[in-house]
Amino acid sequence: MPSLDLTVSAVELTRIICDIPSVSDDETVLADSIHAAIAPLEHLDVYRDGDTIVARTDLGRAQRVVIAGHIDTVPINDNVPTRDISVDGQPFLWGRGTVDMKAGVAVQLKLAAELVAPRVDITWMWYDHEEVDADLNGLTRLARTRPDLFGADFAILGEPSNGEVEGGCNGNLRAIVRTAGVRAHSARAWVGENAIHKAAPILQRLAEYRPREVAVEGLVYREGLNAVRIRGGVAGNVIPDLCEVEVNYRFAPSRSLDEAEAHVRDVLSGFDVEVVDGAAGARPGLDAPLAQEFLAAVRAEPRPKYGWTDVARFSALGVPAVNYGPGDPHLAHHDEERVSVAQIEAVERGLRAWLTGS
Amino acid sequence: MPSLDLTVSAVELTRIICDIPSVSDDETVLADSIHAAIAPLEHLDVYRDGDTIVARTDLGRAQRVVIAGHIDTVPINDNVPTRDISVDGQPFLWGRGTVDMKAGVAVQLKLAAELVAPRVDITWMWYDHEEVDADLNGLTRLARTRPDLFGADFAILGEPSNGEVEGGCNGNLRAIVRTAGVRAHSARAWVGENAIHKAAPILQRLAEYRPREVAVEGLVYREGLNAVRIRGGVAGNVIPDLCEVEVNYRFAPSRSLDEAEAHVRDVLSGFDVEVVDGAAGARPGLDAPLAQEFLAAVRAEPRPKYGWTDVARFSALGVPAVNYGPGDPHLAHHDEERVSVAQIEAVERGLRAWLTGS
Repeated sequence: MPSLDLTVSAVELTRIICDIPSVSDDETVLADSIHAAIAPLEHLDVYRDGDTIVARTDLGRAQRVVIAGHIDTVPINDNVPTRDISVDGQPFLWGRGTVDMKAGVAVQLKLAAELVAPRVDITWMWYDHEEVDADLNGLTRLARTRPDLFGADFAILGEPSNGEVEGGCNGNLRAIVRTAGVRAHSARAWVGENAIHKAAPILQRLAEYRPREVAVEGLVYREGLNAVRIRGGVAGNVIPDLCEVEVNYRFAPSRSLDEAEAHVRDVLSGFDVEVVDGAAGARPGLDAPLAQEFLAAVRAEPRPKYGWTDVARFSALGVPAVNYGPGDPHLAHHDEERVSVAQIEAVERGLRAWLTGS
Repeated sequence: MPSLDLTVSAVELTRIICDIPSVSDDETVLADSIHAAIAPLEHLDVYRDGDTIVARTDLGRAQRVVIAGHIDTVPINDNVPTRDISVDGQPFLWGRGTVDMKAGVAVQLKLAAELVAPRVDITWMWYDHEEVDADLNGLTRLARTRPDLFGADFAILGEPSNGEVEGGCNGNLRAIVRTAGVRAHSARAWVGENAIHKAAPILQRLAEYRPREVAVEGLVYREGLNAVRIRGGVAGNVIPDLCEVEVNYRFAPSRSLDEAEAHVRDVLSGFDVEVVDGAAGARPGLDAPLAQEFLAAVRAEPRPKYGWTDVARFSALGVPAVNYGPGDPHLAHHDEERVSVAQIEAVERGLRAWLTGS
């Protein structure tokens, strides 16, 4: 097990933990290293559940903040170990996990070790299985076994946000829209009914759909309704009896999951729609006093988050939550994933300033 | 190797050869049995190439007729061995191959053995691999190794035609129509371009398409232009960058393959169309004197054949060709495949009458 020295710079620590591979389902080595580095720290109460590690201060502060980051990555594609590169003359750290989200985790680990007396109590969470099914997510497990650990006045996820503060997130719904027909030999097509032809109006409505832009608590969320997959047909000489269009609706956090489903059914009325997956969004929650203080301290303008992230879990528990981390989210999962060194340093400065009140 | 007694009735012989499984690529046992039964017959010159067997009379008649049937079937699906069943009080033989086309082959085998002095010379052909890629078809191989065997004035394929005479066949063209887009995370759909949405007009045009009915030499051919398969998309959270619609065009034999391709490109103008497979149809050729005599002898009204069959091979060589066999073509490949006993007997009577001039 590699040992972690938490006194090195956050940039150096990013490199070290990126070079310990931790693709989802294979996080144990990194979790062991983190646990070994954090457990001896006297100002933290440490709890471990599988490959999720929770470390809490217990200073009796009036307020408590959760600061969380996942330690898994999507699969490596020849982009480990990390490399130092230069982009437009600026230093970057290149490699899998640099953006999503080990730079954020490195900043958190360093501050967790150093800040023995922050101005708010802190619950640090480093968790496994974020990049795969929500069922497997370390936070899903923790919420079942130790819901008390989620108690807080504010939460910060270190997901990449270009060093800006991204509030809330859009909701996410997936549905399968089906058309049915009757199989026949394509030499006698008139005996059958073509299910693929019947899907024409589905694609037409989606192509013509104009997504909303919705202001929620001062942030403007862009929605989207898209076909993400389509399939139909059995053979080159058979009239198809089934066509399935998978639709993905990303909806503003002002709309509930039920309202989102009703909207999709309305747009695709007349068709067989089966909702297969859904998660409500999260309101930005930036009107909370602690959130306002945080924004002032890190000197960032809040922006809306479009993708669904674990902030929605906290939002659902009544805890205002934001994303704040180094790295360009467009480069997450990218084979050329790379993080700006300056952003790592800026996020470390921002969090430190707020947590120490300096 | 089961031995075949060609003196039993054509119905009994159908049962026997259906109960010798011969799914494409596995025809050898049946081919061996046929070869062993035919080779000793002194009035026939027998030639074998793989699992294709050719048997010819050489009586010096003024005219020669090819009579051909494939010995392979599509895969068995719990429908072998055959069973005697009754449909609306009429006897049927039920099981894989009964329709497509071992009843036709049984009639041919019986007549090949019995007719030692037909009024025309006959080239019997029983061949393998008809139900799979044309490249593998026994007749494709034979045309390459022994093109001389195809010389004839008329050809009869024993494909199921409900005991009627089906002339010629429609042509067949398959094409892939593609739309391209730009991948993006579906949470930020506006960064990408949705290739599935772009396929809407393709499906719309196909849905609105009205196929022609075309008279060719007195027979009316119905055409058809259909999407037979569609696929697109990579994941539930990615805007798709590619959608592929596979289109199947069945066209009247008055249209050449080039004209058919031009028509498909015209209907789908503005889209990327790649033709992946094509075969011209066959004109019915029923104005040939031998064809007229045949129609009179078997007392059948000619009908158009919609599906592509090996008659097109003969037509392309300048040999008028028809389909004439027992069995409802709609039941070919069906799990409830079954042939009317009366149709087997009628086709045997028809062929015998014509070949003996009685």
